[in-house]
Amino acid sequence: MNNTHLLAEFLAGLAYEDLPSAVLDRTEELFLDWLGSALASQGQHPIPLFQAWVRHMGPAEGSARILVDEGSSSPYFAALVNAASSHLVEQDDLHNSSVLHPATVVFPAALAAAQDLGKSGRELILACVAGYEAGIRIGEFLGRSHYRIFHTTATVGTLAAAVAVGKLMGFSAAQFIHCLGSAGTQAAGLWEFLRDAADSKQLHTAKAAADGLLAAYLTADGLSGAQNILEGAQGMAAGMSSDADARWLVDGLGTRWALSETSFKFHASCRHTHPAADALLALMQRHDLRHGDIEHITTRVHQGAIDVLGRVEVPQSVHQAKFSMGTVLGLIAVYGKAGLVEFEQHALNDAEVVALRGKVSMELDAEVDGAYPRRWLGRVQVRTRDGRTLAGAIDEPKGDPGNTLSRAELEDKFQRLLAFSAARTPAQGRELIARVWALRGLDDLHLIA
Amino acid sequence: MNNTHLLAEFLAGLAYEDLPSAVLDRTEELFLDWLGSALASQGQHPIPLFQAWVRHMGPAEGSARILVDEGSSSPYFAALVNAASSHLVEQDDLHNSSVLHPATVVFPAALAAAQDLGKSGRELILACVAGYEAGIRIGEFLGRSHYRIFHTTATVGTLAAAVAVGKLMGFSAAQFIHCLGSAGTQAAGLWEFLRDAADSKQLHTAKAAADGLLAAYLTADGLSGAQNILEGAQGMAAGMSSDADARWLVDGLGTRWALSETSFKFHASCRHTHPAADALLALMQRHDLRHGDIEHITTRVHQGAIDVLGRVEVPQSVHQAKFSMGTVLGLIAVYGKAGLVEFEQHALNDAEVVALRGKVSMELDAEVDGAYPRRWLGRVQVRTRDGRTLAGAIDEPKGDPGNTLSRAELEDKFQRLLAFSAARTPAQGRELIARVWALRGLDDLHLIA
Repeated sequence: MNNTHLLAEFLAGLAYEDLPSAVLDRTEELFLDWLGSALASQGQHPIPLFQAWVRHMGPAEGSARILVDEGSSSPYFAALVNAASSHLVEQDDLHNSSVLHPATVVFPAALAAAQDLGKSGRELILACVAGYEAGIRIGEFLGRSHYRIFHTTATVGTLAAAVAVGKLMGFSAAQFIHCLGSAGTQAAGLWEFLRDAADSKQLHTAKAAADGLLAAYLTADGLSGAQNILEGAQGMAAGMSSDADARWLVDGLGTRWALSETSFKFHASCRHTHPAADALLALMQRHDLRHGDIEHITTRVHQGAIDVLGRVEVPQSVHQAKFSMGTVLGLIAVYGKAGLVEFEQHALNDAEVVALRGKVSMELDAEVDGAYPRRWLGRVQVRTRDGRTLAGAIDEPKGDPGNTLSRAELEDKFQRLLAFSAARTPAQGRELIARVWALRGLDDLHLIA
Repeated sequence: MNNTHLLAEFLAGLAYEDLPSAVLDRTEELFLDWLGSALASQGQHPIPLFQAWVRHMGPAEGSARILVDEGSSSPYFAALVNAASSHLVEQDDLHNSSVLHPATVVFPAALAAAQDLGKSGRELILACVAGYEAGIRIGEFLGRSHYRIFHTTATVGTLAAAVAVGKLMGFSAAQFIHCLGSAGTQAAGLWEFLRDAADSKQLHTAKAAADGLLAAYLTADGLSGAQNILEGAQGMAAGMSSDADARWLVDGLGTRWALSETSFKFHASCRHTHPAADALLALMQRHDLRHGDIEHITTRVHQGAIDVLGRVEVPQSVHQAKFSMGTVLGLIAVYGKAGLVEFEQHALNDAEVVALRGKVSMELDAEVDGAYPRRWLGRVQVRTRDGRTLAGAIDEPKGDPGNTLSRAELEDKFQRLLAFSAARTPAQGRELIARVWALRGLDDLHLIA
């Protein structure tokens, strides 16, 4: 029995009673964080394009809710739009060592299917934990070589979403194997779009969630899939990785809760910028530095940061600016934060931010690269106008499990996300918060949307 | 300007008047052949699963027709079901040097979109030529290393379908670039399923056609895509090929009509078995050999045949038997043909076929492998019970452009495909044939379904 089968056995056997209360708590927290991310994108390009696609191709109403327009459609389309929505403003969660954004693919698929199937909050939580645990391990399994070319949240996201929906449907181990096969053979998503500020990042999560849901529904009806899609000679690792390690597939199953290792995003930018942003912020506070004092900033980073951020020179859109190390550090230096509002107002044309952007360079650092992807270390070196060289370092960016956001901070972030798009009023936000903190007792999941 | 851009310029500029009449003829022939393949699968697993998926997730009726059930839905779902259908019985066309089955991905997407957009037969033909020309060159570009792991019809099929739909929409070169970007970043499909006789082959074509259509519709609405999805540092070739050659992307644009190089399938099996099947048939006829005379058959093949067929030992389903060299040669030896009916009745449990199956081996042949994929040479060696060693060779399998099927043979094949599933009566078949032979003058494409 290979490790994929052991993972499938674990997924089939996982019961709500197995979940530690800290995992239940964290799942609710990740869910609220995801919901805010989805609502924050209302009305922003390219989300209306996905909504128009649903109106053209999908049923005009259905069993599953579309968050941004408060409409509904079939679960396939609800998963599609909700997943596109929740990955736009770059505030959704990230798991470090898999470099997977689990929320934006797992929750849309699971929520849509749960609404369609009439499942409860408890069942939703169990399904999402299964999706996180499987997806994170599959991301770790495919390794750094995969992430160099492929957007792991797109590829692995398809399998994570499929597992979550399969768990809602009560799959056996054999069904999970088929489901992984049908999901894995649909797994796609290349980083190439990033250089052009193209809209593929939302297409990726939309398709991952929807295609994963498709894999699970068709499996339930009897579609068979490859029995060894991850490890086989013509499977995902063979085609899309050169450093896959199957031990990760079963790492600490039942004792290690990978979901709880997932980081919240504090800054509204690509997670690869956060360690440097926090290190710079700490350095500037410690030395009472102002942005005008800065001559140059060198960030010492892991290779993955260079692969993803290195292709963005002069950002052409607010979204692309979130992948510009210079822009993020510019916002931090000038405004002390890099939130949604700072990006919207200052990322592209603010003279001081643009000036700072040109003073930032990235250098590969052996220590940082060696720790990655398990730990995302922040190391910056600042040369000041008056000739000093200052060093800043942080070992756990804000939002990491050891430096997490409290429920109060998450509520604050949630309300800021809602306010950004005006998708819901603060009062509606408070009501949603209350429902999510009571998710494990909720019977009707339509109350969430 | 790179070769992807040159290809996009060609696609944007291509006009109906540019198409030689032989290309128009061949497009109609390929279309009829495709239509028969789709109808032949009515009622056969797993096609009803896709029909059920549409009923659950799609509109109950719509602008595009579903061939197998004579119902309708939105074009996304019609493309999905029709593409799954047309790749099941292994009778759809194949282009040799790209190892792409173009019909099963291009026609479903283009027909569904043309019905949705109210386009004519002429516009459909032009769009499909664009899809064939682009898809075949992209398949050639990605090379043999791609096909070793990835099912080219699934991956490249997504782009071919997208191009066909984009041409129906009158895309500019810039739009084609975006469209290729959004299609290429969805491209997926691994061969791993084949070993297990799993249902992924139909899932692959279903998704390729539907996702390609999605890419085109979203491009029309303004979704941007990567500008260099094929050749870029984090694009398809970088992630999914080790022998990509961009010269193929522009090979003979406007003078070489790759569509006309596409082969019709005579036997109802994987195309990799056809050269050996035809060589064996010729050898047996020449030497007046009977199947009982055969002690052993050695087929001398290209590596691609070993990669695809080598994973099937004892076939578990009729579909998997189509990928068993031993079964195909067994049917040829015992029944003189390997058509739909022979597979259905004799592929799995016929004692004489099973006995022959165990007497067939494949060996890599340098000459055959060197000619591949441009030419698919058939070389077999038969050892007889009475101690003779006989050699059989053919250089163009039946159905290849130099050994093609006449319109009469195509009509006969079409009626056999319809009779196999009873999807349409012979009289309805004759009516469809007449409409397809008049496709270039047809105004209402709903008459086809």
